[in-house]
Amino acid sequence: MTTSPHELDSADPLAAMRDRFVIDDDLVAYLDGNSLGRLPRATLDRLAAFVREEWGGRLIRGWSEGWVELPVTVGDELGAALLGAAAGQTVIADSTSVCIYKLLHAAAGLRPGRDEIVIDATNFPTDRYLVEAVAEARGMTVRWIEPDLVDNVTADVLAGALGDRTAVVLLSHVDYRSGTLLDLPGLTEAVHAAGALVIWDLCHSAGVVPIALDASGADFAVGCTYKYVNAGPGAPAYVYVAQRHLTHARQPIEGWWSAADLFGMSDTYEASPSIRRMLSGTPSVAGILAVQEGVRLIAEVGVEAIRAKSELMTGHAIELLDELGLELVTPGDAALRGSHVTVRHPDARAITAQLIERGVVPDFREPDLIRLGLSPLTTSYAELAAATRILGEVVAPIG
Amino acid sequence: MTTSPHELDSADPLAAMRDRFVIDDDLVAYLDGNSLGRLPRATLDRLAAFVREEWGGRLIRGWSEGWVELPVTVGDELGAALLGAAAGQTVIADSTSVCIYKLLHAAAGLRPGRDEIVIDATNFPTDRYLVEAVAEARGMTVRWIEPDLVDNVTADVLAGALGDRTAVVLLSHVDYRSGTLLDLPGLTEAVHAAGALVIWDLCHSAGVVPIALDASGADFAVGCTYKYVNAGPGAPAYVYVAQRHLTHARQPIEGWWSAADLFGMSDTYEASPSIRRMLSGTPSVAGILAVQEGVRLIAEVGVEAIRAKSELMTGHAIELLDELGLELVTPGDAALRGSHVTVRHPDARAITAQLIERGVVPDFREPDLIRLGLSPLTTSYAELAAATRILGEVVAPIG
Repeated sequence: MTTSPHELDSADPLAAMRDRFVIDDDLVAYLDGNSLGRLPRATLDRLAAFVREEWGGRLIRGWSEGWVELPVTVGDELGAALLGAAAGQTVIADSTSVCIYKLLHAAAGLRPGRDEIVIDATNFPTDRYLVEAVAEARGMTVRWIEPDLVDNVTADVLAGALGDRTAVVLLSHVDYRSGTLLDLPGLTEAVHAAGALVIWDLCHSAGVVPIALDASGADFAVGCTYKYVNAGPGAPAYVYVAQRHLTHARQPIEGWWSAADLFGMSDTYEASPSIRRMLSGTPSVAGILAVQEGVRLIAEVGVEAIRAKSELMTGHAIELLDELGLELVTPGDAALRGSHVTVRHPDARAITAQLIERGVVPDFREPDLIRLGLSPLTTSYAELAAATRILGEVVAPIG
Repeated sequence: MTTSPHELDSADPLAAMRDRFVIDDDLVAYLDGNSLGRLPRATLDRLAAFVREEWGGRLIRGWSEGWVELPVTVGDELGAALLGAAAGQTVIADSTSVCIYKLLHAAAGLRPGRDEIVIDATNFPTDRYLVEAVAEARGMTVRWIEPDLVDNVTADVLAGALGDRTAVVLLSHVDYRSGTLLDLPGLTEAVHAAGALVIWDLCHSAGVVPIALDASGADFAVGCTYKYVNAGPGAPAYVYVAQRHLTHARQPIEGWWSAADLFGMSDTYEASPSIRRMLSGTPSVAGILAVQEGVRLIAEVGVEAIRAKSELMTGHAIELLDELGLELVTPGDAALRGSHVTVRHPDARAITAQLIERGVVPDFREPDLIRLGLSPLTTSYAELAAATRILGEVVAPIG
């Protein structure tokens, strides 16, 4: 290395953002912000105030004083800051799994007569399981893509699976294992050329990779907020539905919160004409407020600045891991990766356990992968250097 | 009145529980705990500690240090304290609407060849909407019961709708408008006699009415936790599946949290053999902890004591409302009502607005109903007396 971690941190325009988060001393390095992001100080204060003053003080009046609009207003904030989405297309709701389920049904319903859902075998388990479940429920077939883990879903690989039977394609923007970043605009165009619709799972990209859903012509998107949005364990998910699909898309879990008149207690169900139609039941107010704080921290510096640090830092991590002689399963080209870097090692599970013992928290993924998640708002170069140094010490004797 | 509110409060064995909640001075009477319960002081402390120490301090380690088990362990606590449910049958999950959706599909799937779902037209909107949606998706028919609002679903009324086409019956234990309490054991038996399965919506009864799901042979149940469980706005719901159905019941939103091996990242989906199979995505940890605190407050005194106060207090409320000459739509027999009392008035909306202006918070329900919710852990006789006095003053000039 020619530059010290201290020099890299000094030169980091986002270094000061780390102070906006609660950071305890017991860890040498937290490299799992891609799984659960750190706690923003603003969120700590906001949640305390919400519980005491709003729930405790306003009680039921809180719903009419603003809570009822939060899924949409915070959805709009998230859409604008993270997704390149104009207002009215994004809503905070449920969990990622429930939202994927809703979108799969909604998308499939817009392509009657087509009977295939396409997904890659490298996708996250819940995405794969839900595609199988929805396909079975609708009498459709799952068309599997079997891409290489590192190259992941390329245009060529996808092309072989698309056809006039394709109704819906579900893709993860950044692969949860390799960190490979897919070509969202290009693949969206390819899906559309086949007359199908695409759902983008943004769990591992939103907040750390610039996304332009509107400009890319994406149909649907979904993501979680507990990773790079730093909204806490089990924070709610979000759903994006392109304006052109909004009045046609019908999701299956039609509850009172998706109805045109929430408190009308109508005899018959009429779906809201707005993005609220993607809701179902009463949302967690505290959960949405934590999303809002997380989104605002990202908006303050902008995703472009976060991406710039992420590209530098993942590149730096790859250099350090290369020096240790470890096998990388993350693309070397910064344009082709998200913000985590993954190594493959037969003793990955044992190595992860030893790292955690020594105060370095990465993330083990079956069967033999160690992910190092770099969250530009909170990860310092000093942390990264310490983590790779300790990783080197742990790996050397294991061999 | 022969007894003063002060005397009634002095004689109330639960009066001291009120101090366990945050109670601000700006309200004369909060009679909407049946819509959103008050904030327990223990919850205020627990959530603050959780956010700062557990999320902020333990970060991703929290999942393996206990969070991952919370849906089931808190489900078991709730089941034992509120539902008469042995361990392993109750899980905290999603929203009530999403849970109703899951249970409708799961129950219908256990009765192939039967094509009717029975529900009453007086039921809560989300229940009705979801029955319609699920019936349509499965090619089934909705069989509507049209009971009188006050008598609600009696054995006689239900009998006319049951037959060998009946797959599932969805009933609310306490009607959200009239407060009528249904005969859960008796109606369960009637549904079973027809060879069908019953789903009980316990939103307006759990925590305030003793429930014996196991002893009653109920099949499925669902409820929210933001009413009498006092777990906060948008707190998660719960699902009960009787042990005998557990390995057969298949819910449609099969995500990674319902899989047999959550972190196995398996190629193929296998449902958990436990109640975890009713989960879908990552649950809100803070939400579940608030449920746990709410449940523990109830467990501390027991539902029987809460019910005893509820019967006395609703009876007292009915006397006071009778004296005002108001039309009641809640059964006069304490055994036939839950813990809210409802009056019908053509100017209900305007009256509610005036009450709120004067610091009395009831609940308006379309088209002409005012609900007074009495939450025995927090509602005092002084509150009830003040509320009815002011209601009298508001109603008199309106006429």
